Amino acid sequence: MTQATQTQSNTSSFIPTFKSLVSKEGGIEYPLEALHVCEETFSPLEVAYDYDLIRRQVSRETIEAGPNSIWRYRAFLPVATDNYIDLGTGMTPLVKSHRLARRLGLKNLYIKNDAVNMPTLSFKDRVVSVALSRARELGFTTVSCASTGNLANSTAAIAASAGLDCCVFIPADLEAGKILGTLIYNPTLMAVKGNYDQVNRLCCEVGNSYGWGFVNINLRPYYSEGSKTLGFEVAEQLGWKLPDHIVAPLASGSLYTKIYKGFQEFVKVGLVDEKPVRFSGAQAEGCSPIAKAFSENRDFVSPVKPNTIAKSIAIGNPADGVYALEIARKTGGHIESVNDSEIIEGIKLLAETEGIFTETAGGTTIAVLKKLVEAKKIDPEETTVVYITGNGLKTQEAVQGYIGEPLVIDANLDSFERALERSRTLERLEWQQVLV
Amino acid sequence: MTQATQTQSNTSSFIPTFKSLVSKEGGIEYPLEALHVCEETFSPLEVAYDYDLIRRQVSRETIEAGPNSIWRYRAFLPVATDNYIDLGTGMTPLVKSHRLARRLGLKNLYIKNDAVNMPTLSFKDRVVSVALSRARELGFTTVSCASTGNLANSTAAIAASAGLDCCVFIPADLEAGKILGTLIYNPTLMAVKGNYDQVNRLCCEVGNSYGWGFVNINLRPYYSEGSKTLGFEVAEQLGWKLPDHIVAPLASGSLYTKIYKGFQEFVKVGLVDEKPVRFSGAQAEGCSPIAKAFSENRDFVSPVKPNTIAKSIAIGNPADGVYALEIARKTGGHIESVNDSEIIEGIKLLAETEGIFTETAGGTTIAVLKKLVEAKKIDPEETTVVYITGNGLKTQEAVQGYIGEPLVIDANLDSFERALERSRTLERLEWQQVLV
Repeated sequence: MTQATQTQSNTSSFIPTFKSLVSKEGGIEYPLEALHVCEETFSPLEVAYDYDLIRRQVSRETIEAGPNSIWRYRAFLPVATDNYIDLGTGMTPLVKSHRLARRLGLKNLYIKNDAVNMPTLSFKDRVVSVALSRARELGFTTVSCASTGNLANSTAAIAASAGLDCCVFIPADLEAGKILGTLIYNPTLMAVKGNYDQVNRLCCEVGNSYGWGFVNINLRPYYSEGSKTLGFEVAEQLGWKLPDHIVAPLASGSLYTKIYKGFQEFVKVGLVDEKPVRFSGAQAEGCSPIAKAFSENRDFVSPVKPNTIAKSIAIGNPADGVYALEIARKTGGHIESVNDSEIIEGIKLLAETEGIFTETAGGTTIAVLKKLVEAKKIDPEETTVVYITGNGLKTQEAVQGYIGEPLVIDANLDSFERALERSRTLERLEWQQVLV
Repeated sequence: MTQATQTQSNTSSFIPTFKSLVSKEGGIEYPLEALHVCEETFSPLEVAYDYDLIRRQVSRETIEAGPNSIWRYRAFLPVATDNYIDLGTGMTPLVKSHRLARRLGLKNLYIKNDAVNMPTLSFKDRVVSVALSRARELGFTTVSCASTGNLANSTAAIAASAGLDCCVFIPADLEAGKILGTLIYNPTLMAVKGNYDQVNRLCCEVGNSYGWGFVNINLRPYYSEGSKTLGFEVAEQLGWKLPDHIVAPLASGSLYTKIYKGFQEFVKVGLVDEKPVRFSGAQAEGCSPIAKAFSENRDFVSPVKPNTIAKSIAIGNPADGVYALEIARKTGGHIESVNDSEIIEGIKLLAETEGIFTETAGGTTIAVLKKLVEAKKIDPEETTVVYITGNGLKTQEAVQGYIGEPLVIDANLDSFERALERSRTLERLEWQQVLV
């Protein structure tokens, strides 16, 4: 993007490519409205596209010439207007890892870093940009969501920028940074005494009677398509190639299944060659219904009550859990979980080696990556992409107390030198303990 | 950037364009080493370039074809190696403001949003990327800085990624997010009982005896050049045009003078047409030595003891203060200050209207923008660019208590409806009070 954002010329001759909603099971068609569940099969609705039309309008070159944001992939997104909301969201770095890769013994590790996604520092800005662009098309003036934190930040911020009224729902016990990082945009913020699954149920009831656009309920088919861009970008950033293996966090399972859909769509329209990609997934032990089903070889997911520091992925009754299971199994991936102290170590490991400060969800993903490497479930030669989905400044309390303290000194050379000497002695002692 | 970061091909035939250090007063030449003060004039040293060589190697097209980071402007940066540190820093959004502009009565307002700069969410990632790339060239293995917070975050993160040892110095009373956001990368962190100016003096002493690369002391001539990219990007993002007016925060004054140098260099090599640009500057009343000198029409800056919530710009003895004064005066700009409650209102105003959550420095800049508009010192028709230099998640305590509270409810429709009704009544009452 060389031009200022929000100033894209509105004179494109682009023809929208999305044609209906279709039930994930049974393939029953629905109109392009604010609908999300099939009345006959009760399965979720998904957006269907005219892939011939996409193929005719899109090439690697047209994409590369597009904006430096998710909207370079607009042909794959369910938004008709040229006046979509573009706050620079997406096209986050795909970092070739050197120091973490060496530490883990991997040769081709990449980190997709949505901890610096714009505007609110998580992958949720992708789905919300799409959902609110579509919400405006459908005539909604108030938007809402049920959130574990990042989605609340994103919905409130992007609604503010777009001038939409906003009411968001969160569990009352979220991290301080997530609450303040929502309130600052001045939405109505409902803090529900309960866990995410209770918040979600309440929002379904509210959705039925208030005529609001809930990004992850009645707008979910549009919203969730935004996550495909995490697949598109990785393929483009690898030089129009798919990776061999991806590791992503699992909350509802939506992100994971949409990365898969993104890769498939790129193959379908001829932008990349087909090849097998293994899909591995990460959960926190304190909320790991999908990992449990995976390890017990079940094809259904039993809901659990979340109890983990990884609150942003603490969904006990994951909407897309069974679809995630199916993808992991058919691609030869693995779904693993790690405990809270492994999550903290994961956050620290990524920060120390790559200078990337992620939140608890990212710590979970890094810790699972490490576990999979140790269990020889990742080949050191494989091109592996690990997805970091949120920023550590939002979950500071998770690491407070585990990262050392500053050395407090007086403003003179003597005080500095004594402190430096103490810290070096301490380091030596720690090393000796490691050696003993 | 379509390719993964850190994987730029290392086969370029680019010829470095920086040729010496030169004292800002007297023009005395020095070799390209870790030097920062002229021994004869005591004025700071600056990097000098061969502009003919730049002109021969650079065009709008070569820049546009470069990486989507500050390194597209490498011909203007003092780094020789192709192996520079590129973590996706720079090319942050230039947002065309609609809602804030309307609120202020401006027609052509743009927000340069470094609150989402990579990797550590402030403009400091620009200067540190340049300084540490140069530090490696000069053979340093330990890097350091005197910081008001953002610089500590950035130096620690980028040093971690580059595998350099790191020791950073901060005033002990910084915001929690700035301290934790440094410690997470596992540097040695010295918290000095004193203000920034005392920290800085201590670092000068340490610099003399330890052989470390202090990014903003002995590496300052290289480091500060990174800020020019905030000028380059704005010019490019405006479609290769300079704005009419810029408003930027003033701490040491370095950022402000380097934006000016960036604009001048683009004119000098023919990338943009020459035109007058007014330079306005923002300080916090509790630390406003430059604003005071401006209003009292002095050409020297008297040091002050900082006392403001805007800690990241609380430099009482600003190194480049006189140069900033000079630029403001000769371009017809203004340097203004605002108090702490205006700063908080500035943070909230930007968040509510544009969905951008900035730290106290950004609140200062927005509040000064507002003050200048109200004083008719900004023409509504002017193309005005306001620089937002850091993220609000790092200074949460500044707004805590001023942004309302969540409405805590039970997980049922009834509790939600009562809360919504209460909040709407409250809003109506507030409006009535406004009307009365």
